[in-house]
Amino acid sequence: MVDLITRRPLPDALAQAARIATQMIEAQLSDLSGPVPDAMIYAARGGKALRAFLAIETARLHGVPPQVAAHAAAAIECIHAYSLIHDDLPCMDDDDLRRGQPTVHKRWDEATAVLAGDALQALAFELLGRLDCADAAKLDLTLSLAQAAGVRGMVGGQAADIAAETADVPLTLDQIIALQAGKTGALMSWAALVGPRMALADQAALRLYGDCLGLAFQIADDVLDVTGDAALVGKALGKDAAAGKATFVSLLGLDGAKRRAVDLVTQACDALSDYGDDAETLKDAARFVTARTH
Amino acid sequence: MVDLITRRPLPDALAQAARIATQMIEAQLSDLSGPVPDAMIYAARGGKALRAFLAIETARLHGVPPQVAAHAAAAIECIHAYSLIHDDLPCMDDDDLRRGQPTVHKRWDEATAVLAGDALQALAFELLGRLDCADAAKLDLTLSLAQAAGVRGMVGGQAADIAAETADVPLTLDQIIALQAGKTGALMSWAALVGPRMALADQAALRLYGDCLGLAFQIADDVLDVTGDAALVGKALGKDAAAGKATFVSLLGLDGAKRRAVDLVTQACDALSDYGDDAETLKDAARFVTARTH
Repeated sequence: MVDLITRRPLPDALAQAARIATQMIEAQLSDLSGPVPDAMIYAARGGKALRAFLAIETARLHGVPPQVAAHAAAAIECIHAYSLIHDDLPCMDDDDLRRGQPTVHKRWDEATAVLAGDALQALAFELLGRLDCADAAKLDLTLSLAQAAGVRGMVGGQAADIAAETADVPLTLDQIIALQAGKTGALMSWAALVGPRMALADQAALRLYGDCLGLAFQIADDVLDVTGDAALVGKALGKDAAAGKATFVSLLGLDGAKRRAVDLVTQACDALSDYGDDAETLKDAARFVTARTH
Repeated sequence: MVDLITRRPLPDALAQAARIATQMIEAQLSDLSGPVPDAMIYAARGGKALRAFLAIETARLHGVPPQVAAHAAAAIECIHAYSLIHDDLPCMDDDDLRRGQPTVHKRWDEATAVLAGDALQALAFELLGRLDCADAAKLDLTLSLAQAAGVRGMVGGQAADIAAETADVPLTLDQIIALQAGKTGALMSWAALVGPRMALADQAALRLYGDCLGLAFQIADDVLDVTGDAALVGKALGKDAAAGKATFVSLLGLDGAKRRAVDLVTQACDALSDYGDDAETLKDAARFVTARTH
């Protein structure tokens, strides 16, 4: 029953990844009731599941079937979901809408949002502990996720983003790149390395792919913040410009930002050349990131 | 330079544990600046370090020197510190004072408090990833910490505690015991099992010790909430009674609660009989928990 078909339409692969990650998270919580487990499941649903897809697809590329990578896919979606819950809090970005639905603190309350986020982070590490792979791979995945999620990764990027809002001088391009490498890039890169890490294989190609993809994704997000339709994107838009924050668009211009994103996607795809046709769905994913901005 | 002296005065052992855990956390963050790393260090300082002590002391009992258990001691203090930061938030317990100092959201702001807590949780798992012990032990410690911290452990207990505040019917004794087993007990029990887990040894005796100690600790806390001096305890008191919440004191009476705590301490000490004199400092720690209430 090993499912190792490598080329498939991207929407199917994304939908499969979302299903696998969500079912895994729901299975962990199925015997619990109450606002906190309910909010955990609510927050884990309805996303693009791009990170779960990267985990599952890079695993497949290294001969690890989706069912075996499922715990890692669910783990990264837990971290992503927790970060969205906490970022949406009134004391942070103060957002009412996420993925087209009320944010957790609007649907429940702030205490539930804090706790559901906290528990999702713990669940991510619990899920990795249940992975069926070599001990060395499991330890590598766990330590690297802790680093990617922490003060030198995602939280550090988020803190730098908040600091930038009140800074006297707007950030430079290099500073924004460094900030985004933490805020968005660290989780994306971790997801792209699930395959080689589980298979104890070389990480270089997918590291480059993940780093380029993460940055392209954030540039595309900045572009969408200016050009997008809130109803389609599923969250409030135009907030960065309103806040006078430096973004890739303010620094590179709209066309310049789009060009940079396309260049990064080309780099990401080129990085996968040694994998041949097996990597086509991953390349499609990279192209999809910028396609959203056109 | 292996430091395996087992009997030492409890205050010295606690002070040593606090020093080891704090220095380890500071070392992880020494090259960083900004409110979030500063708040992480601030929150990790100044506690009793009872959990770090349990980790170090039970490690010593199994031939693992303090320097080797330091990562585990720091990890459990990271989880404890993060839980205090988030519990103190306005949307949770809304406390201004912790360990005699302004809480993190008062000293900085709520966003910093949310992020510093989040990053401390990630740091705990990063620290465990750097432990110098067998892979199997490291994986066991990591998975069990994720469970102890999560929705079936600490966060679950905290959620149950919040639900109890608005419940129509006060909790029964069994319900409060279950709540506390999560809220306080899970981390305490995890800390008490660091030694046997690192040494891949039998956990039964220290599991009983940790469970009894955790419950005794919470009963003592309820007693102190009624009888204590806020200046000495270092946080606001009398809040439970004011909120009309069921506590061990409201259910057992003040004397009944004190007696129950003493019984649990006796059980905790008896559980260690096979360790002989080597476990005296751990027994002193159990006695210290109830001594605070007299």
